[in-house]
Amino acid sequence: MKDLAGYRGRTLEFLRRASAGVGDVLEVKTDWGTVTGTVVPRYASADDSHVVLKLKTGYNVGLDVSRLRGAKVVAAGEKPSFSPSPAPKARPGLPKILLLGTGGTIASRVDYRTGAVHPAVDSSDLHALVPELSEIAMVDSEILFNILSENVKPLHWAKLASRIAKAVAQGYEGVVVTHGTDTLGYTAAALSFALQGIPIPVILTAAQRSSDRPSSDATLNLIGSVSIAASADISGVYVGAHLDESDRGVALHAGTRVRKNHTSRRDAFLSVGVPLAAVWEDGKVRLIDDGPPSEVRKALFRPKPKFSNGASLLKFYPSMPPSLLPSLRRSGTKCLVIEGTGLGHVSSDVIIEIGRFVRSGGMACMTSQCINGKVDLDVYDTGRDLLNAGAIPLEDMLSETAVVKASWVLANTRSAEEARRMMLTNLAGEMTSRRLPG
Amino acid sequence: MKDLAGYRGRTLEFLRRASAGVGDVLEVKTDWGTVTGTVVPRYASADDSHVVLKLKTGYNVGLDVSRLRGAKVVAAGEKPSFSPSPAPKARPGLPKILLLGTGGTIASRVDYRTGAVHPAVDSSDLHALVPELSEIAMVDSEILFNILSENVKPLHWAKLASRIAKAVAQGYEGVVVTHGTDTLGYTAAALSFALQGIPIPVILTAAQRSSDRPSSDATLNLIGSVSIAASADISGVYVGAHLDESDRGVALHAGTRVRKNHTSRRDAFLSVGVPLAAVWEDGKVRLIDDGPPSEVRKALFRPKPKFSNGASLLKFYPSMPPSLLPSLRRSGTKCLVIEGTGLGHVSSDVIIEIGRFVRSGGMACMTSQCINGKVDLDVYDTGRDLLNAGAIPLEDMLSETAVVKASWVLANTRSAEEARRMMLTNLAGEMTSRRLPG
Repeated sequence: MKDLAGYRGRTLEFLRRASAGVGDVLEVKTDWGTVTGTVVPRYASADDSHVVLKLKTGYNVGLDVSRLRGAKVVAAGEKPSFSPSPAPKARPGLPKILLLGTGGTIASRVDYRTGAVHPAVDSSDLHALVPELSEIAMVDSEILFNILSENVKPLHWAKLASRIAKAVAQGYEGVVVTHGTDTLGYTAAALSFALQGIPIPVILTAAQRSSDRPSSDATLNLIGSVSIAASADISGVYVGAHLDESDRGVALHAGTRVRKNHTSRRDAFLSVGVPLAAVWEDGKVRLIDDGPPSEVRKALFRPKPKFSNGASLLKFYPSMPPSLLPSLRRSGTKCLVIEGTGLGHVSSDVIIEIGRFVRSGGMACMTSQCINGKVDLDVYDTGRDLLNAGAIPLEDMLSETAVVKASWVLANTRSAEEARRMMLTNLAGEMTSRRLPG
Repeated sequence: MKDLAGYRGRTLEFLRRASAGVGDVLEVKTDWGTVTGTVVPRYASADDSHVVLKLKTGYNVGLDVSRLRGAKVVAAGEKPSFSPSPAPKARPGLPKILLLGTGGTIASRVDYRTGAVHPAVDSSDLHALVPELSEIAMVDSEILFNILSENVKPLHWAKLASRIAKAVAQGYEGVVVTHGTDTLGYTAAALSFALQGIPIPVILTAAQRSSDRPSSDATLNLIGSVSIAASADISGVYVGAHLDESDRGVALHAGTRVRKNHTSRRDAFLSVGVPLAAVWEDGKVRLIDDGPPSEVRKALFRPKPKFSNGASLLKFYPSMPPSLLPSLRRSGTKCLVIEGTGLGHVSSDVIIEIGRFVRSGGMACMTSQCINGKVDLDVYDTGRDLLNAGAIPLEDMLSETAVVKASWVLANTRSAEEARRMMLTNLAGEMTSRRLPG
């Protein structure tokens, strides 16, 4: 009995005629040539005119069945089995690294036939899949949680920060965290604030393509990140990810300055406003950036793994209803980060609501949707109106980092004045101060 | 009587002692050298410990007065006068171009002394400031409105589109629109939808630095944009802006694919997901990209200058309260564009609210905050859940373009099904279709 999930009407008939079902590899003839791919399930809302095939390249194509000349099954669908080899023995004397799993593609497997991605591999499987790790470090694996990163919340940041703080006490020389790519930047920022002054490197890593695909970035990212954690003379929170589209190396990004800037490329992560922290290439680590000022780097390590749900982010756009602000205030927002246009601007009607938001005891911060460059409210009348309304300009802080920082600040002080001061202070390399010494 | 706007306490005393006021050029001695700059006014909320000077570079520095060793006024503040030469005579025979002013830095002047930017130059002044224009085209100037672009609303898009449609009827061979940089991309997208099939080029241009600053990009952008409008074999809506950090040329970006990606650089605008449309360099135009498929380019010109205020944009972040969605629905949002993470994802609790939003008759569309790459809801379970909830994946459409398109679609059809079909159709080069012909 063939699985024909989601197919109906014309396409259902077409597949039945070819004796094909979901997971079968189908060869179809079209006006412009022959296409071979695996039949992918469709969804309730889909039309009934297209069969969707997953090509070898990993991409899906939708083919209009009314224009297909014929089809034959060239391979039947079956689920691939997976049996990893046991983890290799640890070598004493190597640096002690903790590998923490939280979920995501790096810890997932694709069903080859349908292309569906399932969270299936645990951290020890991952370690077993990459036996090279035991040449680099004594790696202990642990799964903290196993969720897609779009479901990571402030409570997960807190859990992760607490576990890493404990790892320091346990004598680990570095921690590598596997995490989904989607919200990796947000989590890296969260750990940067919660673990200020941490004496060991914490490297979050991920994969854009799952570990059983030939083009996967999982292995290289994992080996590179563990290598850096084990051998580089650094501390603090970073993201380790593909340096470029080749398998040449791993780039290390500062945890408060990193952004996922491409939906699918393996080198999706970029450092914004700062150089890369380091590059791992040819088995060697090259440190590039000194990172934040030494007073930030040398902060005393006192983990503060608490986050509030009272921070919100709004991206400004021309038809934005100003009523969004009081609505957020009523539903519990204490600190609002507004991603303005250009130097950090919003329309006059929104400025009025920002003033009200601040007078009601809320905190309003400005970032820019330009991503690059810095907020400056001293140049135009709009900026000055924003300052008068009480808006806090966050210099070159990324919007994503800003909302995470606000969440951390709200949980770590009750004083409005102290919260404002903390938002304007470079705590974890998240902003470049504009003031010259004087 | 010196102007000491915003200064109080220690800084007020410091400036009085030096007989200095806002607008005066002050030379101060610090521990690390001498700094010369113009005293800039401060704002009610500013501290009383820093004097702010605008340096020759255009940047402001805040200097702690308690650490300054002395100060003297080296030039007194006075307002520069401005008297443009009269507009040069038009030369018959050249292409007829309409120059429309809407406001923004390109049409503003800086008070040299304080650095404040005022909207002061009208389009004919601008023409007079750039006499080269009369060598290129017969330029008629007109001011449609004069506002900062962060205050541009859908009603302004409508007004601008109507005026440009009239210009076609009047026989103009091209239209150049001067506009603030902040929301230039949104307006370019709006005109692209409202003026589908327009037979002449419409080029929006702007300046990051005002026209009386030595580093201004106003002149080059204006000459380049008018040259392209007058001589290139193109039609449709574009943005013309500095090609790079030099004064080498002007890049032409497709109106639905352009993004302000830097807060202050002159080459702040980037084409995302498509090549540049053209480059103007050494007085010549080089066409680069064929642009959207010919059926889009060759659409019949029937201006539809209507926009709705019922489109909203939400950027997803880990602590986003799902209640934002029903709140937006209640306050009149009919189409919600959600800027998800990665391939277009949001958390499970937000997906539930998207389902409710859609069942209540709203339309929900997904874009990605990655900016580069395209939304794909077929790869992960989260994406499939979103499709089942009724979310519409907008491929590689920019979020900014998506919310503008939604605003246009809502005003131009009353059918929900037709609206959905329009959102998924490439109307003005705003998306790259994933489907192969078949």
